[in-house]
Amino acid sequence: MIKILEVQTRLFRLPLAEVLVDAKHGDHHFFELITVTMRFDDGSTGTGYTYTGGKGGHAIAAMIDHDLKPFLEGQNGDDVEALYEAMQWHVHYVARGGIASFAISAVDIALWDARGKRREQALWQMAGGAARSCRAYCGGIDLGFDLPKLLTSVQGYLERGFDGVKIKIGLPSLDEDVSRIAAVRDLIGPAVNFMVDANYAFSVDQAISAARAFESFNLLWFEEPTIPDDYKGFAKIAEATGMPLAMGENLHTIHEFQYAFEQAKLSYIQPDASNCGGITGFLQVAALSEKHGLPICSHGMQELHVSLVSGRKNAGLIEVHSFPIDQYTERPLVVENHRAIAPEIPGTGVVFDWHRLETENLLTS
Amino acid sequence: MIKILEVQTRLFRLPLAEVLVDAKHGDHHFFELITVTMRFDDGSTGTGYTYTGGKGGHAIAAMIDHDLKPFLEGQNGDDVEALYEAMQWHVHYVARGGIASFAISAVDIALWDARGKRREQALWQMAGGAARSCRAYCGGIDLGFDLPKLLTSVQGYLERGFDGVKIKIGLPSLDEDVSRIAAVRDLIGPAVNFMVDANYAFSVDQAISAARAFESFNLLWFEEPTIPDDYKGFAKIAEATGMPLAMGENLHTIHEFQYAFEQAKLSYIQPDASNCGGITGFLQVAALSEKHGLPICSHGMQELHVSLVSGRKNAGLIEVHSFPIDQYTERPLVVENHRAIAPEIPGTGVVFDWHRLETENLLTS
Ligand SMILES: [Mg+2]
Ligand SMILES: [Mg+2]
Repeated sequence: MIKILEVQTRLFRLPLAEVLVDAKHGDHHFFELITVTMRFDDGSTGTGYTYTGGKGGHAIAAMIDHDLKPFLEGQNGDDVEALYEAMQWHVHYVARGGIASFAISAVDIALWDARGKRREQALWQMAGGAARSCRAYCGGIDLGFDLPKLLTSVQGYLERGFDGVKIKIGLPSLDEDVSRIAAVRDLIGPAVNFMVDANYAFSVDQAISAARAFESFNLLWFEEPTIPDDYKGFAKIAEATGMPLAMGENLHTIHEFQYAFEQAKLSYIQPDASNCGGITGFLQVAALSEKHGLPICSHGMQELHVSLVSGRKNAGLIEVHSFPIDQYTERPLVVENHRAIAPEIPGTGVVFDWHRLETENLLTS
Repeated sequence: MIKILEVQTRLFRLPLAEVLVDAKHGDHHFFELITVTMRFDDGSTGTGYTYTGGKGGHAIAAMIDHDLKPFLEGQNGDDVEALYEAMQWHVHYVARGGIASFAISAVDIALWDARGKRREQALWQMAGGAARSCRAYCGGIDLGFDLPKLLTSVQGYLERGFDGVKIKIGLPSLDEDVSRIAAVRDLIGPAVNFMVDANYAFSVDQAISAARAFESFNLLWFEEPTIPDDYKGFAKIAEATGMPLAMGENLHTIHEFQYAFEQAKLSYIQPDASNCGGITGFLQVAALSEKHGLPICSHGMQELHVSLVSGRKNAGLIEVHSFPIDQYTERPLVVENHRAIAPEIPGTGVVFDWHRLETENLLTS
């Protein structure tokens, strides 16, 4: 028994270099980072975290402070999977997804960080140990960029050593989306992985038209063509067009992922450990994806997902997200020969630069 | 345009007369009430609210204060349905249910309260106007009561004028559940409506065994036999046993209700306006239930649901819940000839006794 002595929550609002826009979330001026640091009676500590696009951070911190912290303190911090289940039931009435999934994720990641430090194991090993590196691509939040700026941005991804790029779509006219896709494919050539992300802006019928219009551009996938709740709508789009589909960032419970695997005819799954139950939740989804024969990809948090995806036999690609959390850590994402390399640091390998977080925090209260 | 000037949130922790226990939520020592009072530029005001079993209240208040309030102030408060949709998209990334549904519910109810006052309409009229009263039953949270106390409690419901009772089940042994059910049916006689609620404590197979063991007691329904996520599991139980099933208190989005209506073979649906999107969300579910030929029932918040259920053509029964919110209002639930009577007060008809709330509030911070 390794007793949990203390749970400390912090909320940061961090700036973005410029306003980022997608089809459904509006303008992003900043993002929120919520950290949880836990202290145990064997002297060990662990830090976990979650993030948002700018809304919900206070609610997440409040749930950790008022509902999870009093429940956790005094419990056995080494029995991570049991605590994960217990937290889910503890807040079930106000949960089954939503804020509770973000709050539980942050705590779960802290528990895994401490577990890895105690065992002197890096996360890619604890996650399965299949490999220490994985494929990666840059995901732009670039629907607000005009075409020249979009192309400069994509060019920047290639110059940083990536061989995969994703752009946002879902402009008022499909023709505009198509001409931007054509221009990007032209720029990057046929060998670079290319994906598009509609952030569920389309109806099923609109998405079918769009997928047909995108056919000649050899897209690796079409992400969130329609609302994440409509599993069978995804299947209709896949069946009507043969376009490979991806989603996962908006699925928060194992049940939602099960429905997606069984009904949505996805080609890729993209869980985010910050909102699907942390590392325990992510690994549950990874096991399911293996069973269903789908590559495990990820959304956001590249500094953590590099280890989780690399460790899995059915590794897909990690997204290198435009919220630069990794820039606030002591080891920003490392890319070599187009591959992202997992850290060898015991624990999650995500060590925050607290001074920089404090300095750049936009929250005054 | 009626501009929203101010959104004020308050959080109360209110005592229960005794500890209440069910199969999955643990002990309830108190409940949380989160109120939202809105002020508009025509001088009108409206108050809405949501509640929890003791967890999540701070997170709900934080989401209203930090994410919804800045979004709402300055907007047109009379366009309730448009604001409802806009709030759902505004917090979508941290939502699709969970805390966001509770927060949006409280705001939506405040908007309807103000709308009713402006139109000088009572809620039962705004909800459809089919009738001003509906059937009702008392729902005990009584799994912790020994048999004599359970029977005294049930007897109390009959003495208060109700002709329907519900008890909790899900004890470690099915035999115990059965003998409690037998004793209650014995006490109340054959004419009183009798339901049981497992709070999703069973697997599908266990629930099938239980439903078979309950067959001779003429139950009106078997509530939440298994986890709310398993729509097809509900259908298996209904098909295998013919037992009428009910759920709804744990469904938070219209998509979840759609899946339940389409797949779960329910006989009754029990949305709770405090967590399914307020009055707008409840009325969407009520319309769906009519389409699917199911009586619309409710969970909790009898003082509000009496109006919402009475107003509908396909009215079922409201639950008179063991969290006595109505005791903190100026008009505790009125029951005449076994029927619950909706208030004629313009707006929701739920007018809080703020002094009593402040006096009995257990929260010091
Ligand atoms: Mg995406
Ligand atoms: Mg119930």
